[in-house]
Amino acid sequence: MKLLEERIRQDGKILPGDILKIDNFLNHQIDVKLMDQIGEEFYNLFKDTKPSKILTIESSGIAIATAASRYFGYIPVVFAKKTVAANMSANTYEAKEHSYTRNIEYTVQVSRDYLNEGDEVLILDDFLANGEAMNALISICHQAKAKIVGCGSVVCKTYQPGEKRIRDLGYKVEVLARVCHMSDDGQIEFE
Amino acid sequence: MKLLEERIRQDGKILPGDILKIDNFLNHQIDVKLMDQIGEEFYNLFKDTKPSKILTIESSGIAIATAASRYFGYIPVVFAKKTVAANMSANTYEAKEHSYTRNIEYTVQVSRDYLNEGDEVLILDDFLANGEAMNALISICHQAKAKIVGCGSVVCKTYQPGEKRIRDLGYKVEVLARVCHMSDDGQIEFE
Repeated sequence: MKLLEERIRQDGKILPGDILKIDNFLNHQIDVKLMDQIGEEFYNLFKDTKPSKILTIESSGIAIATAASRYFGYIPVVFAKKTVAANMSANTYEAKEHSYTRNIEYTVQVSRDYLNEGDEVLILDDFLANGEAMNALISICHQAKAKIVGCGSVVCKTYQPGEKRIRDLGYKVEVLARVCHMSDDGQIEFE
Repeated sequence: MKLLEERIRQDGKILPGDILKIDNFLNHQIDVKLMDQIGEEFYNLFKDTKPSKILTIESSGIAIATAASRYFGYIPVVFAKKTVAANMSANTYEAKEHSYTRNIEYTVQVSRDYLNEGDEVLILDDFLANGEAMNALISICHQAKAKIVGCGSVVCKTYQPGEKRIRDLGYKVEVLARVCHMSDDGQIEFE
């Protein structure tokens, strides 16, 4: 997605630890028009898979998934939670995720009320690096006996194992901006 | 907002501790069409205030704020963060929030890059009970010297101090569904 690559090249910052920071339009401040364009792009890439539900993970996935939902005819969005809340049912699917940027392990949870056999799930997230978050969402779909129709990520780093890891599980994976190199002087290259 | 009240009456569950659970369309599963209707309602209530930016707080505020942004001509959304991330600048505004549903204290943060003097901020959130989250967002706007043009909440409990607390600070407050009583047998009444 050329528009997104240009925006990442323009606004992306490279932080120590090979972290790509694009929080002025995706992870902290949100460019809602760009989210709509991202949502439309995911629709074009996955419309043939006819998802009945979109699964994502808080927080940054929410703007992406809700934008995409509109193009898919307002299918429900479910976002996995990373913390245990008092107002959450104890009746959840759970998976572990090791966060690359935060270097801590989360328990990712989805209520059994909102994901079940018969759901045809499109998984969407912001970043695909090592594939930890995506893998946790896949595990949750397996527990729910829901069918995964595809996995989409706004950005991936092609030199990290996430994309291959998910594809090797047998799923269709689509990425909108494929970063293949980030240099110390701030240059970002796309595949 | 009648449609929202009906939905809360239909789907809302009352949990011990006077907690209203509406996570099948707002806090965990998201009804995106309803989010658009909520966004349009906030637009109608606040269009005269001409905000240049919407400030909310992760996670549930994101779907609400991005939906509203579309009606305001795609103004940027900034969501405050509740945890410290490695990819976040140390250069933040901070405020404390005691979470009613989780009974823990958060540090709420917004990067200084995304909120400044000259911003005309509409603050939107999902729940207004004791006003802790809203108050933290107001404090952050004060630190940024940003102008607050209004505060909107999807739901409030009128018998808790939040709404009055924010109004007493001098801000325009609009609430879409005003819960005045929740009974032990699951009945929810609106003002």
